[in-house]
Amino acid sequence: MVEEAAAFKITHVKESRVKQLDPENIVFGSLFTDHMLVADCIDGVWQTPEILPYGDIAYNPALASLHYGQSIFEGMKAFRNVDNEVVMFRPEENFKRFNISAERMCMAQVPEEIFMGGLKEILKLDSAWVPDGEDNSLYLRPFMFASDVYLGVRPSFNYRFMIIMSPAGKYYSTPPKVKIETEYIRAATGGVGYAKCAGNYAASLYPAKLAQEQGYTQLLWTDAQTHTKFEESGTMNVFFVQNGKLLTPKTSTTILKGITRDSLINIARDSGYEVSEQDVYVKDIVEGIKDGSVTEVFGAGTAVVVSPFSGVGFEGDDIPLPAITEKSISSVLKQKLDGIRKGKLEDTHGWVYKV
Amino acid sequence: MVEEAAAFKITHVKESRVKQLDPENIVFGSLFTDHMLVADCIDGVWQTPEILPYGDIAYNPALASLHYGQSIFEGMKAFRNVDNEVVMFRPEENFKRFNISAERMCMAQVPEEIFMGGLKEILKLDSAWVPDGEDNSLYLRPFMFASDVYLGVRPSFNYRFMIIMSPAGKYYSTPPKVKIETEYIRAATGGVGYAKCAGNYAASLYPAKLAQEQGYTQLLWTDAQTHTKFEESGTMNVFFVQNGKLLTPKTSTTILKGITRDSLINIARDSGYEVSEQDVYVKDIVEGIKDGSVTEVFGAGTAVVVSPFSGVGFEGDDIPLPAITEKSISSVLKQKLDGIRKGKLEDTHGWVYKV
Ligand SMILES: Cc1ncc(COP(=O)(O)O)c(C=O)c1O
Ligand SMILES: Cc1ncc(COP(=O)(O)O)c(C=O)c1O
Repeated sequence: MVEEAAAFKITHVKESRVKQLDPENIVFGSLFTDHMLVADCIDGVWQTPEILPYGDIAYNPALASLHYGQSIFEGMKAFRNVDNEVVMFRPEENFKRFNISAERMCMAQVPEEIFMGGLKEILKLDSAWVPDGEDNSLYLRPFMFASDVYLGVRPSFNYRFMIIMSPAGKYYSTPPKVKIETEYIRAATGGVGYAKCAGNYAASLYPAKLAQEQGYTQLLWTDAQTHTKFEESGTMNVFFVQNGKLLTPKTSTTILKGITRDSLINIARDSGYEVSEQDVYVKDIVEGIKDGSVTEVFGAGTAVVVSPFSGVGFEGDDIPLPAITEKSISSVLKQKLDGIRKGKLEDTHGWVYKV
Repeated sequence: MVEEAAAFKITHVKESRVKQLDPENIVFGSLFTDHMLVADCIDGVWQTPEILPYGDIAYNPALASLHYGQSIFEGMKAFRNVDNEVVMFRPEENFKRFNISAERMCMAQVPEEIFMGGLKEILKLDSAWVPDGEDNSLYLRPFMFASDVYLGVRPSFNYRFMIIMSPAGKYYSTPPKVKIETEYIRAATGGVGYAKCAGNYAASLYPAKLAQEQGYTQLLWTDAQTHTKFEESGTMNVFFVQNGKLLTPKTSTTILKGITRDSLINIARDSGYEVSEQDVYVKDIVEGIKDGSVTEVFGAGTAVVVSPFSGVGFEGDDIPLPAITEKSISSVLKQKLDGIRKGKLEDTHGWVYKV
């Protein structure tokens, strides 16, 4: 059945696969919902987006993005709120960031009707896939890649924007121990650290693997120039609690401007905590953990929401952090963010977006 | 027709498309030969490589490389020598570099039988596509990408290695004017500059576009830390001639170790030129061009072989270089390298590889 809904051409699946979803046992990232969205930008002109049954797509082996990495993505989530409605959290921020990434990678700008309109359309169609349950959500993956069939190094003339969706459960089971990375880098000034582009993630795998071999779960990235200042942790922004005050590295071209980061800063300030966006020095934090002034270090991102660390590794030493309790600032902030997202707490900032 | 040839499973095209190749009018990168090679590494085990008619391949939209950029490639050429035999130039060096790139990107190592054996096998099959003509060649593109269908950030368990081939003619028609880039970077220490990975090329497009808008053809990259030392130019290594002596930046983790670069260094030394691999400072070269001591600046890479620049742009100033003649060192080196490749000059280093 093919129908024209608003500006989208929709082909429905014959039979939904939603029974494959077991909300008690969600394995992230390999089960996808019934439908996917595909929109092509041909020589600068966006074609009518199509929503199709999820499935393989045929590509020429000279697909430009496979060779030269012109590829960006976003990661966002849809939830069920207390009234069982499907909601997203600050999706316009992902839309804005997507086009910031696109600009840095010389890719086409995606129109709001396609990004935001597409998310709404496909979420309505596959709303049965938004799982119930405390830490469950439907992970939304808008992405775009160069679709020229051409082997020269130049910006592609054609792009394909897609949205696929995968049910997600809890991220880490135990608090991660993170290694302060002082040799490898995720980003450097003049580069693409602030863009959510494919290459940044591939580049991070090797140092992350080395850290894992040394017993760490993830990395705490430091600045490329001096390796004395914190930047991010893995694919999260990072916060520190020192003497009851929240510190987080100020954003720059080397840091992905996280939407969770921004939300937590706002919630913390609303809750009366002091928050400083500043240079955060490795030395100060390592000493602070040792002398007890630094009581929490945690990552913040869509995938994990808030992920308190059990300790940090620095120059071969493991420095444990105090155990997290319900009174820890990270727990309080996580609960508030969750509460707003799920409609249990008042949404004073207008962050919750009903589909 | 399917047959087993050595370790390769070969499916021949029904009818060759080689008549599409016009050696007088080769447009690089969009016409591909009759066949392609595909080899899958599944959970660390390489499967029998297949040679198939060139054509589309079906991929799941969650193909890991499209999202996280675990993707590497090589660029090499096959020629017809004076005896009309098909030869490659130092292909084992590309093979080694491919696996160095693979290691940095946490990807599977490709066995020699598949990389080198595959090149030989497919070149024999499509040898009619190796064009005659002074600056013509068959461009060979071995590449590999993460083929997991999975959205988590982690090294893929599965990889696909492929070889595709496209006829190539002359690269630049006029000597490029290059801009000394002092804001954006291609690579930084601790990153992936020495790997031929997809993300490096996507990251370079935006600064290259800015330079083109300012009237330059390409960039001269400088070091990320101080922007005072040269690294590469576009997708080439770079050489300078000062007082008759050749200078080229010494390689590091931020520079792709070019095979053309290494060949030119050897040919230059064989020919009695002095060559120094050293830090090359922007200031010294800019002053040198102005005072006449620097007479040539040229790029070196498989695509261009040798590409002499017409001038450099620095901080808004255009500094022209003397016109190139047949006696210029870059012309002499290019002619010698071409002579060796085509079998006109003796191959004292054993660089020419007959298929
Ligand atoms: C490198 C990196 N930093 C930080 C974040 C956190 O951003 P957000 O809170 O918008 O998910 C992400 C994405 O999750 C990321 O990939
Ligand atoms: C970034 C970069 N530098 C240098 C080179 C030159 O290397 P080669 O001479 O091996 O082609 C290339 C590839 O052509 C390249 O992509």
